[in-house]
Amino acid sequence: MSGKDPKKGKMKEVKKETGLGLSYKKDENFGEWYSEVVVSGEMIEYYDISGCYILRPWSMSIWEILHGFFDAEIKKMKIKNSYFPLFVSPAVLQKEKDHIEGFAPEAYVTCSNPATDKSRYVAWVTKSGDSDLEVPIAIRPTSETVMYPYFSKWIRGHRDLPLRLNQWCNVVRWEFSNPTPFIRSREFLWQEGHTAFATKEESDAEVLEILELYRRIYEELLAVPVSKGKKSELEKFAGGLYTTTVEAFIPNTGRGIQGATSHCLGQNFARIFEINFENEKGEKAMVWQNSWGFTTRTIGVMIMVHGDDKGLVLPPKVASTQVVVIPVPYKDANTQGIYDACAATVREMNESGIRAEADFRDNYSPGWKYSHWEMKGVPLRIEIGPKDLANNQVRAVRRDNGAKTDIPMANLADQVKDVLATIQQNLFDVAKQKRDACVQIVRTWDEFTVALGQKKLVLAPWCDEEAVEKDVKARTKGEMGAAKTLCSPFDQPELPEGTLCFVSGKPAKKWTYWGRSY
Amino acid sequence: MSGKDPKKGKMKEVKKETGLGLSYKKDENFGEWYSEVVVSGEMIEYYDISGCYILRPWSMSIWEILHGFFDAEIKKMKIKNSYFPLFVSPAVLQKEKDHIEGFAPEAYVTCSNPATDKSRYVAWVTKSGDSDLEVPIAIRPTSETVMYPYFSKWIRGHRDLPLRLNQWCNVVRWEFSNPTPFIRSREFLWQEGHTAFATKEESDAEVLEILELYRRIYEELLAVPVSKGKKSELEKFAGGLYTTTVEAFIPNTGRGIQGATSHCLGQNFARIFEINFENEKGEKAMVWQNSWGFTTRTIGVMIMVHGDDKGLVLPPKVASTQVVVIPVPYKDANTQGIYDACAATVREMNESGIRAEADFRDNYSPGWKYSHWEMKGVPLRIEIGPKDLANNQVRAVRRDNGAKTDIPMANLADQVKDVLATIQQNLFDVAKQKRDACVQIVRTWDEFTVALGQKKLVLAPWCDEEAVEKDVKARTKGEMGAAKTLCSPFDQPELPEGTLCFVSGKPAKKWTYWGRSY
Repeated sequence: MSGKDPKKGKMKEVKKETGLGLSYKKDENFGEWYSEVVVSGEMIEYYDISGCYILRPWSMSIWEILHGFFDAEIKKMKIKNSYFPLFVSPAVLQKEKDHIEGFAPEAYVTCSNPATDKSRYVAWVTKSGDSDLEVPIAIRPTSETVMYPYFSKWIRGHRDLPLRLNQWCNVVRWEFSNPTPFIRSREFLWQEGHTAFATKEESDAEVLEILELYRRIYEELLAVPVSKGKKSELEKFAGGLYTTTVEAFIPNTGRGIQGATSHCLGQNFARIFEINFENEKGEKAMVWQNSWGFTTRTIGVMIMVHGDDKGLVLPPKVASTQVVVIPVPYKDANTQGIYDACAATVREMNESGIRAEADFRDNYSPGWKYSHWEMKGVPLRIEIGPKDLANNQVRAVRRDNGAKTDIPMANLADQVKDVLATIQQNLFDVAKQKRDACVQIVRTWDEFTVALGQKKLVLAPWCDEEAVEKDVKARTKGEMGAAKTLCSPFDQPELPEGTLCFVSGKPAKKWTYWGRSY
Repeated sequence: MSGKDPKKGKMKEVKKETGLGLSYKKDENFGEWYSEVVVSGEMIEYYDISGCYILRPWSMSIWEILHGFFDAEIKKMKIKNSYFPLFVSPAVLQKEKDHIEGFAPEAYVTCSNPATDKSRYVAWVTKSGDSDLEVPIAIRPTSETVMYPYFSKWIRGHRDLPLRLNQWCNVVRWEFSNPTPFIRSREFLWQEGHTAFATKEESDAEVLEILELYRRIYEELLAVPVSKGKKSELEKFAGGLYTTTVEAFIPNTGRGIQGATSHCLGQNFARIFEINFENEKGEKAMVWQNSWGFTTRTIGVMIMVHGDDKGLVLPPKVASTQVVVIPVPYKDANTQGIYDACAATVREMNESGIRAEADFRDNYSPGWKYSHWEMKGVPLRIEIGPKDLANNQVRAVRRDNGAKTDIPMANLADQVKDVLATIQQNLFDVAKQKRDACVQIVRTWDEFTVALGQKKLVLAPWCDEEAVEKDVKARTKGEMGAAKTLCSPFDQPELPEGTLCFVSGKPAKKWTYWGRSY
C-alpha cells in the first residue's frame, strides 16, 4: 500500500489532534521520560503517599504472567507456597542484629546491598486505633527473621529436609532516596523463597537452578539481557555465604541494575536461629540455607530497556494484549463488513491462543487508536480497511520497529504467531546489541574513569580485595552516586597470568563488572 | 479382606505407638478441638504475635485453588486485577469518616458488620527506623478509601464505564476479641473487588453474579452449604446501599458465620469521592458502585464443618493431595513389587489429572501413615499389600466415612475419580443435612430463646424494624455474645397475610435468620 496508502495522510492529521504522545524523549530526558511513560502507558498511577504506586491492570497482568511462569517452575522443583505474617516482633529482629556483623543501628540490613545502602529502614506499627501497642511491631522488609524460628521448630531429623518454601507477598522498605516506580518503591511485590538442606551441595545446586529461572524471566519473557554472576563480599547479602545475581544494564543512564538475587546463606542463620537436625548417622548437624527473590522491579527494567519515544514496548510473551485489531472504516465503504472482519480476526486469534482484542470505540479515530496502543506498547497492530477487506488480507504493523506487512487472512493465526516470535527475538537481540556495545574492557584507572564518564558497563580485572572496592567508591563519589562492583560474571573472559588489577596493580584474580547502579 | 485382613491387627498395635491423634473431641470441646486440628493437620502454625498465623503449604494450597477458580471466573466477566498500596493516608480516611454516619472515632468501620463490632481497629505506622514519620500512616483494613480517589480521576465519561477492578492482597484489622485461626485474625488474605457502573441495574446484576461465585466456592468447592440472603440495615456494610451475603452455620457451636459479602454501595462513595461521569446525553452523573470480597476465613469454615475426631476432612476439589498411596509390605512378601505398584498407581492417577502421591517413608509404619494422612484429611487412601498385588487390586479407604472397597487395578483412575466425586457430594449432603436439622422456625419470643439455647439456626418472621434488632441484641447479651439477624434468605418460605413478628407482634415483612455468630 505504501505510497498510495489512504490512511497515511489521515493519520498524520489525526496525530495532531490527539494530544497523545510523550513530552520527553528517552535519549534527552531519561528520568522524565520514564516517569511519564509509566503513567501514560497506564502501568502506574502515582499515589498520595510518596514512594507508593498503584499497579494498574496493564502492569499487573505482566506480573501475573511472571508469577505464573515462576510458580509453575518452582512447583516442579517441589517447592511449596506458604504465607507468613506481615508483622515481625522486635525480639527476632534483635536476634539477627546481635549476630550479624554490619547491622546498622535501627536499620534492617537483610535487604539487597545492605552494605552500601543504610537508608532502607523498617516501618514500625506503634498504634492501633488511638491506643499505643505494648510493643512496637515491624513490617517485614524480607522474611528471614519471620520464618527461621519456625524452620527451627519444624526441622528435627534429616527426613524433614529439604524444607523448601516460597511466598508471594508485599514487603516494605521505607526508602528515602529517589523513589522510582517499580525500581525503588517503599512497598513492592515479590516472591521470596526460603529453603533448608542437609548438605551444602544441594544448597549450591538450588542457588543456580533458581538463578537460571531468573535469567529466563529476564531473557526469555522480558527480552532483557542479563549477566549471571556473583556479588563481591562487600555487595553480598549480609549474613549470607555468597550471593548470585542476574545483572541488567540501562544504556541510557549507564547504570547497572540488580535484576534478582539467589543467595546461599550457608549456616549463619541456622546458627542464629538454631536450625539443627539429626543426620543419618544420628549426629546433630546444622542445615544449609538459601533465600532468593525477584520483585516487580523486573517490570521497570523491561520498560527502561525497550520503551521508546512513542511509549511502552512490550515483549509479546508478557503483553496481556499481544495484538490489537483496529477497524479503519471509510466513507462509502462496507463498514459493517470491516467490523465483522475485525471481530472474526480476533476470534480466530483467540482460538489459536493469541491474546488479541479489537478496538471498536466509535468516538476515536483510527489514528488516535494507533497512538494510544503504541503508547501502551502492544506488540502488533492489525488494521483492517476497505482495501484489506477487498484483498482478503490485513495490514500488520510491528511496535518494535514499525515494519508494516500485509498478511493474507487465509493463514492469519499461524503467521501472527511467527511475527510475535520474531518480535520477541528482535527485542532481545536489539537490547543485547545495545548492552554489549556498552561493555568496555578497562585495564587502568584512567581508562576506568573515562569509561564511567561515557556511561559504559566496565569489565575490569580485579584483585578481589575489599579495600579496593571501598577505594573505588570513595574516589567516584559524587552527584551521580559512586561506582561499585556489580558482579563477577560466571562467563569469565580469559585472564592471562600476570594480568593486574586496574586499581591496585596487584595480580588480578577475576574479571568483574563495575559501574554506577540503581 | 475384612475379617482375615492381616493389616488390621497390626494397625491397632501401631496406632498405640504413633502418638498421633487429637486430645480433644469435636463434640465435647469444640474450641480446643479446632485449635488443635489446625495445627496437627499442618494448616497453621501459631505465630509469636497474637492474632497472626502462619499459613502452611497445606492450607495455602487450598487458598490457591479457591484463588484459581475465582480469578478465572472474574476474568471471564472482564474484571481486571490491579494492586493498590498497603498504606492509607489519614486524609482520605478522615474524608470517609466525615461523611459516613456511624463512623466510630478512631475506629475504621468500612469492614463487615461495622455496626456491631467497633473493636476492629486500624494499625498505624508512625516510625521508620528510629525517626517519627511526619504524618502517621494507616495500614489498609479494606481499600475503598485507597482506591476511590483514583476512580474519580480515571472516570470521565460513560465510555470509561464500567470500571471493574479486583486485587488479591493482605489486609490488617487489629482485632482484640478472640483471635481464631482463619476465622478472625489480625492480618488475613482476601480478594477485594471494586467496580463502578453507569446504572444501578448493572450494579445490581453484578452483586448477584459475584454472590453466586461465592456460593459456588462454598458449596461446590468446599462442600459447605450456605444461604444466600440480604443483610439487615443494621448489619449491612456502613456507607453501602445494601449487602448480600452467603451465610454458613457451625452446628457444633450453633453460630452463624458470614461466608463472604457482595455489597452494592449505591452512590454514597461516589458522592464522598466525587466519582462523576458525563453520560450519553452529555449530563453529569454519579457512578453506582459495588465492592465484594472473600477471605481465608473460607478455609476455617470448611475445617469446622467437615473435620472430625481423627483430624481434618478435605473435600477432594480443594485437597492438594486427593489420594495418598501407602505401601503395606510384609515379611517375605514381594516388597519391591509393592513399591513398584504404588509408584505405577500414582503415575497413572497423576496422568489422569488426579492429585496423588505415595508415602514411601521407611521410618514409619503403615499404621502411622494411615493416622498421619487421616489427620491431614486426605480424601482417599489407597493401600497396596501383597494380597492386593496378587489379586491385581488396591484397597481404597474413604476419609469421609471410613468405607473400604477393593478396586481392580485395570480401571483404577476412572474409578478413583468416581469415588472422589462421591466423596465431594457426600460431604456436602451430610453437611447440609446437619445444617438443615439445626434450622428451627420460631414464631414467638419464648420459642426463640429455647431454640437459641439449643444452638439452633432460627428462622423467624420479622417486622424488619431496626429497633427490634437492637432489642433482641440487648435481651440476648451475655457470655456467649448477643443474637442478631444473620440474613433474610433470598429463598423465602411463604409468609401468609397476618403473620406477626416474633418479637414486636407487628405484621411481619419477611423471614429472617437469627442467631449468634462469629
